[in-house]
Amino acid sequence: MYKIAVLPGDGIGPEVVNEALKVLNAIERKYGVDFETAIYPFGGIAIDKTGDPYPAETQEACLKSDAVLLGAVGGPKWDALPGSKRPEAGLLALRKSLNVYANLRPAILYEPLKNASPLKAEIVGDGLDVLVVRELTGGIYFGTRGREKTDTGYKAYDTEIYSTEEIKRIAKVAFDAAMKRKKKVTSVDKANILESSRLWRETVEEVAKDYPEVTLEHMYVDNASMQLIKNPRQFDVIVTSNMFGDILSDEASMLTGSIGMLPSASLRDDRVGLYEPVHGSAPDIAGTKKANPLATILSVAMMLRYSFDMEDAARDIEDAVLSVLKKGYRTQDIMQDGMILVNTVEMGDLVVEEI
Amino acid sequence: MYKIAVLPGDGIGPEVVNEALKVLNAIERKYGVDFETAIYPFGGIAIDKTGDPYPAETQEACLKSDAVLLGAVGGPKWDALPGSKRPEAGLLALRKSLNVYANLRPAILYEPLKNASPLKAEIVGDGLDVLVVRELTGGIYFGTRGREKTDTGYKAYDTEIYSTEEIKRIAKVAFDAAMKRKKKVTSVDKANILESSRLWRETVEEVAKDYPEVTLEHMYVDNASMQLIKNPRQFDVIVTSNMFGDILSDEASMLTGSIGMLPSASLRDDRVGLYEPVHGSAPDIAGTKKANPLATILSVAMMLRYSFDMEDAARDIEDAVLSVLKKGYRTQDIMQDGMILVNTVEMGDLVVEEI
Ligand SMILES: CC(C)[C@H](C(=O)O)[C@@H](O)C(=O)O
Ligand SMILES: CC(C)[C@H](C(=O)O)[C@@H](O)C(=O)O
Repeated sequence: MYKIAVLPGDGIGPEVVNEALKVLNAIERKYGVDFETAIYPFGGIAIDKTGDPYPAETQEACLKSDAVLLGAVGGPKWDALPGSKRPEAGLLALRKSLNVYANLRPAILYEPLKNASPLKAEIVGDGLDVLVVRELTGGIYFGTRGREKTDTGYKAYDTEIYSTEEIKRIAKVAFDAAMKRKKKVTSVDKANILESSRLWRETVEEVAKDYPEVTLEHMYVDNASMQLIKNPRQFDVIVTSNMFGDILSDEASMLTGSIGMLPSASLRDDRVGLYEPVHGSAPDIAGTKKANPLATILSVAMMLRYSFDMEDAARDIEDAVLSVLKKGYRTQDIMQDGMILVNTVEMGDLVVEEI
Repeated sequence: MYKIAVLPGDGIGPEVVNEALKVLNAIERKYGVDFETAIYPFGGIAIDKTGDPYPAETQEACLKSDAVLLGAVGGPKWDALPGSKRPEAGLLALRKSLNVYANLRPAILYEPLKNASPLKAEIVGDGLDVLVVRELTGGIYFGTRGREKTDTGYKAYDTEIYSTEEIKRIAKVAFDAAMKRKKKVTSVDKANILESSRLWRETVEEVAKDYPEVTLEHMYVDNASMQLIKNPRQFDVIVTSNMFGDILSDEASMLTGSIGMLPSASLRDDRVGLYEPVHGSAPDIAGTKKANPLATILSVAMMLRYSFDMEDAARDIEDAVLSVLKKGYRTQDIMQDGMILVNTVEMGDLVVEEI
């Protein structure tokens, strides 16, 4: 029996999480397993209730769980709060407290959604399948920061900092993932300028020695942001720092044209993981049943695969999603001519039926 | 009479600079002006000669000039050198010594090259014209960096740091540029995480008060990397830090599909400027006459505009380039079916003829 802490969060978060829980239920029935799910406040809604985006009660529950399922956090309501009191601070604290240092963000272009990509057909070819492995609990997100008064204003600073171990462990995750894929790792850094990037590059080189079958390539971050657009099919696994990963994984997502479809997993060394859609809380469409629940549903598939070792069940969900798409059902964000428009709940039901 | 220090640099640098000098010559004849140009070693070639990518002689000449024209630097030959001895270190020292804090990188899709964009026609529409204003002499490029030994390896760090004044002056450049364009500024930061970004955002807000006609929008860097692909026409002027500008300006360049066409200017408060193509030294095609000289030629146009206040002459060059393209002439990097392939020197000659 696995324990899952469920954090619906803000905006469309609760709506998409609801559909994901229906799918999880269907898997329970099909496989005769039992998941213990419980819902906790997190993000803006938790600020409203307790003044804290990641309240003690939620934290305790997350630390005792085998997996955490997160919807989305944030919204204009909480944007004016000081940095340390915002929903985002809760997200950082959640990641750090769980120590889920490896953020896996697959950017996959599903065959039936091929022409949703903003890129020309000849660039997309048969489809895209890039896995961004982003370091998630280090770097400039967690280094010392502050500001000082000067004669004419302020000086403000943030510190990008990485240790050999932090780089080693994330590199291993990337190489392990590449071994199950096309055996190519592109490590992205700015080693022509940054000392932390030079340590990154050396350390990745070291780790690579244990993976003679994997081709390793280094790329500067500015070039990577170009190459993703010019020729995304050259990539298999991209491994990079927290900050560069934030930028490049979002860029890679957008290449699929359907960010409403993209799941993510954040892992540490045991099987505990945090699972969330790549998209945000979309406060503008919250409550309208327009949200696409597939990213969260596919995040549940990743949970089954990585935290519960239920590969078959994970595949069931992924196949069900593909089959619903093939039948022509679309939420508004991925709607195209000749397809059948459905709302959030209907999309969830369709996936459950397929399972 | 203006003094121009010319730094051809490495790889294709000398070839493209040669063509740009021919064009400068044509302008001298047409307008009866006199430019004093002199060539100095810089980058890898300077390392080979003197051990220093930015030798004292070059530095002295640059500091005495009204403008500096740079080709490109770097190549595999110098990649193994330690950070402070590499061509890139020379580039940073050059920018800092000239104090050219405002890097203007227009990403323009020229009408005759419209279908070179990797983006679909409906996204590109009538064309793209985004100006990225990148802070060039501050941020993590120039903050304290280092590494320390630990029990199990190292810890390496770099510091992102900005002062109110540094942000103010670059914001002014962006707003001034927007006043001459579509009156919209998008300031890109990561204010939900970084303290330096929060100071950035506050300061830009302050500067905006002096430009009531300009619409200011703030955008997180991860979102900006997506929006550039999803809907690049929403942007007019983007202003951002050195590091984010490095990434986003390259991404924006690639959207045009013809990075061989893109010039840049780096300016300070008086009219002195550094002008260089956005593309790199392309060692793989050096010496083959395949390089596209148009980015460097268009950089000369920017020099005439910003450093010498010769708007008509700048337009002459830009019109000449457009007219050569309209006639169907293409270097290999922008070659398309039915067009006429020319080499580096022929392309330079064609532009000179038009002037
Ligand atoms: C909300 C924000 C703090 C977060 C990040 O930068 O990590 C988000 O952009 C993400 O990528 O999950
Ligand atoms: C070569 C490198 C140091 C440089 C930079 O990062 O500034 C380049 O990428 C650029 O954008 O001019």
